[in-house]
Amino acid sequence: MAKAFRIALAGLGTVGGGVVKALHDNASLIRERAGRPIEIAAVSARNKKKKRDVKPPNVPWVEDAAKLADVGGVDAVVELIGGSEGTARKLVEGSLKRGIGVVTANKALLAHHGYELAKLAEDKGAALKYEAAVAGGIPIIKALREGFAANKIKAVYGILNGTCNYILTEMRETGRDFGDVLKDAQAKGYAEADPSFDIDGIDAAHKLCVLSALAFGVRPDFKNLKISGIRRVTAKDIFFAQELGFRIKLLGSARQTDKGICQSVEPCLVPIKSPMGAVDGVFNAVFVEGDFVGNGLSVGRGAGAGPTASAVVADLIDLARGFDVPAFGIPAAKMKQGGWTGTDHLVSHFYLHVVVLDRPGVLADIAAIMRDHDVSIETVIQRGRDPDKPVSVVITCHSVAQARIEKAVARIGKLRSMADKPSLMRIEKF
Amino acid sequence: MAKAFRIALAGLGTVGGGVVKALHDNASLIRERAGRPIEIAAVSARNKKKKRDVKPPNVPWVEDAAKLADVGGVDAVVELIGGSEGTARKLVEGSLKRGIGVVTANKALLAHHGYELAKLAEDKGAALKYEAAVAGGIPIIKALREGFAANKIKAVYGILNGTCNYILTEMRETGRDFGDVLKDAQAKGYAEADPSFDIDGIDAAHKLCVLSALAFGVRPDFKNLKISGIRRVTAKDIFFAQELGFRIKLLGSARQTDKGICQSVEPCLVPIKSPMGAVDGVFNAVFVEGDFVGNGLSVGRGAGAGPTASAVVADLIDLARGFDVPAFGIPAAKMKQGGWTGTDHLVSHFYLHVVVLDRPGVLADIAAIMRDHDVSIETVIQRGRDPDKPVSVVITCHSVAQARIEKAVARIGKLRSMADKPSLMRIEKF
Repeated sequence: MAKAFRIALAGLGTVGGGVVKALHDNASLIRERAGRPIEIAAVSARNKKKKRDVKPPNVPWVEDAAKLADVGGVDAVVELIGGSEGTARKLVEGSLKRGIGVVTANKALLAHHGYELAKLAEDKGAALKYEAAVAGGIPIIKALREGFAANKIKAVYGILNGTCNYILTEMRETGRDFGDVLKDAQAKGYAEADPSFDIDGIDAAHKLCVLSALAFGVRPDFKNLKISGIRRVTAKDIFFAQELGFRIKLLGSARQTDKGICQSVEPCLVPIKSPMGAVDGVFNAVFVEGDFVGNGLSVGRGAGAGPTASAVVADLIDLARGFDVPAFGIPAAKMKQGGWTGTDHLVSHFYLHVVVLDRPGVLADIAAIMRDHDVSIETVIQRGRDPDKPVSVVITCHSVAQARIEKAVARIGKLRSMADKPSLMRIEKF
Repeated sequence: MAKAFRIALAGLGTVGGGVVKALHDNASLIRERAGRPIEIAAVSARNKKKKRDVKPPNVPWVEDAAKLADVGGVDAVVELIGGSEGTARKLVEGSLKRGIGVVTANKALLAHHGYELAKLAEDKGAALKYEAAVAGGIPIIKALREGFAANKIKAVYGILNGTCNYILTEMRETGRDFGDVLKDAQAKGYAEADPSFDIDGIDAAHKLCVLSALAFGVRPDFKNLKISGIRRVTAKDIFFAQELGFRIKLLGSARQTDKGICQSVEPCLVPIKSPMGAVDGVFNAVFVEGDFVGNGLSVGRGAGAGPTASAVVADLIDLARGFDVPAFGIPAAKMKQGGWTGTDHLVSHFYLHVVVLDRPGVLADIAAIMRDHDVSIETVIQRGRDPDKPVSVVITCHSVAQARIEKAVARIGKLRSMADKPSLMRIEKF
C-alpha cells in the first residue's frame, strides 16, 4: 500500500465535521479510489471545548489555524474557515508559499484573490482546489475545468444560492410574501440571522466569479458584476410569472457576448417546463453552453455537510492520485484581465410588473411609452377593477436590448398613476 | 512548449469528423488546457474516397484500422469504430498490449469486455478512457469516477438513449402511436433503418453496464440486466401518465439493494414536475444518489458529432496532462464479480393499464385480484362507456414489491374480458 496522504484540517463546523465523517465512514472505498489512505494529521478550530456532532479525530490540535501549514509531513491543507481575508487567507497563502496543496470551500477568497492565489500556487508547484466552493453537490468545477475542456464556453447560468431558492419556492407554494418567508427560514435555520449575504446575491456573485474565471479563462473579478438580490420579489411577481408559464429564480449568469463577458446576479424568469424551472427548494443548478457540447444542466444540493464534504474529499482524492491541473484550468499567466461588459446590450424577453392606481388611460400611457422606445409588447395581464385603488399590470415584451427597455421603464416609473417602483426581470429561455 | 500529444484516429464518421473539427477549431484553447498541443498522427476509416463534411487531416492513412497502434510515436489511439467484436476490439486490445492509451466511445465493447480491458490496461500501464461512451454531452463518467468518488453510490438512473426519448416526446406532443412516430424518426435520420438496438433498450443497457461498474465497483455485466424497450408503450399510456402527473421515459437504472445490485432498462413513469420529467427530445439525463452528496441530476445531449467529440477530446486532454486513473476508478483486481439481483423485491408505486371489454363486473374482478395479492390501489381512471367494446382502465398502486404486483397482473391478464396484454410500469419518484 502506498504511503498515506496526510491533511491538516482548518475548521470543524458543519462542513469540517462532514469531511471527518466522510473520511472515516468511507475510508476503505476512498483508499481504493485514491490509491492510498487519506489521513487527518492535524486539526484546528476556534473552540476546542465546543460540543460537536462529529467527534474530532485524535490528532494534534493547532490553536492558530494559520499555523496548520507548519505541521510537519502534511501533503495538503483543507481550509474551511471562510471569509476573503483574515485567518483563511493567511492559511491559504502560507500553505501555498510552502508548496503545500490547498483544498478550500472559500468562494469569497477565490472571488477576491483567485488570480493571485492561482499564480502563487503555480509558482510554488502546489495545488489549489475548490470543488466545494460552488454548488458542493454538483461537480461543476471539475466539469468546467476538465469535462468541458474541449469547448469554447458561451454561457454559464446557475441557481447558486440554496437559501434564495428555498425562499422563492416557499413563497410560491404558500403564497406568502418575502419578509414572512424569510423570518420562517431564519427560525428553521435555513437562513442566517443576518441574511444579507445570501438574499442580496453576494454569495451567488462570489460563486459566479469562480465559474466565470473557469469558463472564460479570465481572472475572477468581483467588481465587474451586476448584483441584485431577491428582496424586491413579491408574492404577486411569483404568481404572475406562474400564470405566464415561468418560475422566478435568482440566476447568476456569465456569458460571452460580442462586446465582452457579461456577469450578473439577478432574479430572472425561467420556463416552468424546463429542467431549470423544476429546480426547487435548497437545490442548486448550473447550466453550461459550449460550442461543441451544446447545452447541459446539472442539478444537486448546494450546501450542507454531506454535499460539501463530498466535494472536499473528491479534491483530496485527485491530489492523492497525483492529479494536478492549474487552479483555473489554464496557466495563470494566460488568464485574461478585463474584457467585461455590462447588461445594457443583452437582448432578451422581459417581464414587467407595475402597480398603478386604477384610472382610465393608465395602460394607454404605458403602451405609448413602450411604443416610443420601440419595445414590442407580447402579453398583458390586468385583472380586476378597483377604481383609484392600486392594481397590478403585468407585461411581457419581445426581444429587446436591456438598455432600451430600462429607459422605457424609467419613464413608466415616473407616471403619476404609479403606486410602486416597477419590477423588471429578464426572461431566460433554456 | 511541451512536446505534442500524438493520437491515431480510427473512424471518420460523424463522431470522428467532430473530433477532427474540435481539435482544429479549438486548437489554441486545447493547447492551453492540455499543457501541450494535441495532434493527429494517423487516421483510418473504411472508405478513403467517401465525401466527408470534415476534411480528413493530411496525415498517414492506415488501411487496416487494427494496425493503427503500430504507427510509431503515438501516445493514444482513439477508437470510434464501434461494436463489441471485430476491428474495434482488435484495435483496443492491440493498443493496450503495446502500452498505448485508448480513448473510445464504444459502450458495447465496454459492456461485454470492460473488465478484461481494464485489467489489460492496468497490467500494461496504459490508460483506457471512455467519457464518450455514455451520454457524450454529460461528463458523467468523470463525475462518477472522480467527482463523486467520496461517496458510496446508492443508485444511478438515466435517460440514456436519445432516440427513445425523442420518440416518446414526439408521441406525447402529437398524440401519435409508436410505429407512426418511429417511421417519421427514421425518415428524418433520428432513428436507424434497423432501430432495434435503440428502441429495444440494448444501447441503453450497454451504457447502464458501464455506469453500474463505475458506481458500484463491479465488473460490467450485460447478462445480469433486465431489458425491455419502448415498442409496447402506446399513445394511450402516454396520455394517461400525463393525466396522472407523469411522463414515460426509458430509464436505465442500477441500484444497490439489500439483496444485491439490481440493473434494469425499462419504460418507467417519472413526475412531470421533476427535473428528470422535464428532459425531452434527444436529451439524456443521469441521476446519481450518493451517501454524502445526496441526489443530483445532469442533463445534456447524448449523441451527435459535437457532444461526443467534446467527450473524446476531454479524455485526450486528461491524458495529455498525464492524468490517469484506473478505467473503472478502482484497481481491476478490486472489481467485484456478481452480487446481482433481479427486480422482484424492488418496492415501488406502479402504473397498470389494461384494455378490457366494457362489461359489468370487470373492474370488480381486477380489484378482487389486487386485493388477493395484497396490492393497494391508489387511483383508478376509467373513462367513457361502450358496452362490449374495448376500454382502458388505468390503475396506480401504492408501494408494493414488484414480484407481487407482477403475479397479480399475470392473473389479471388471464381474465376473459381482457382485450390486450396488460401494461405494467414502475413509477420512479425523484
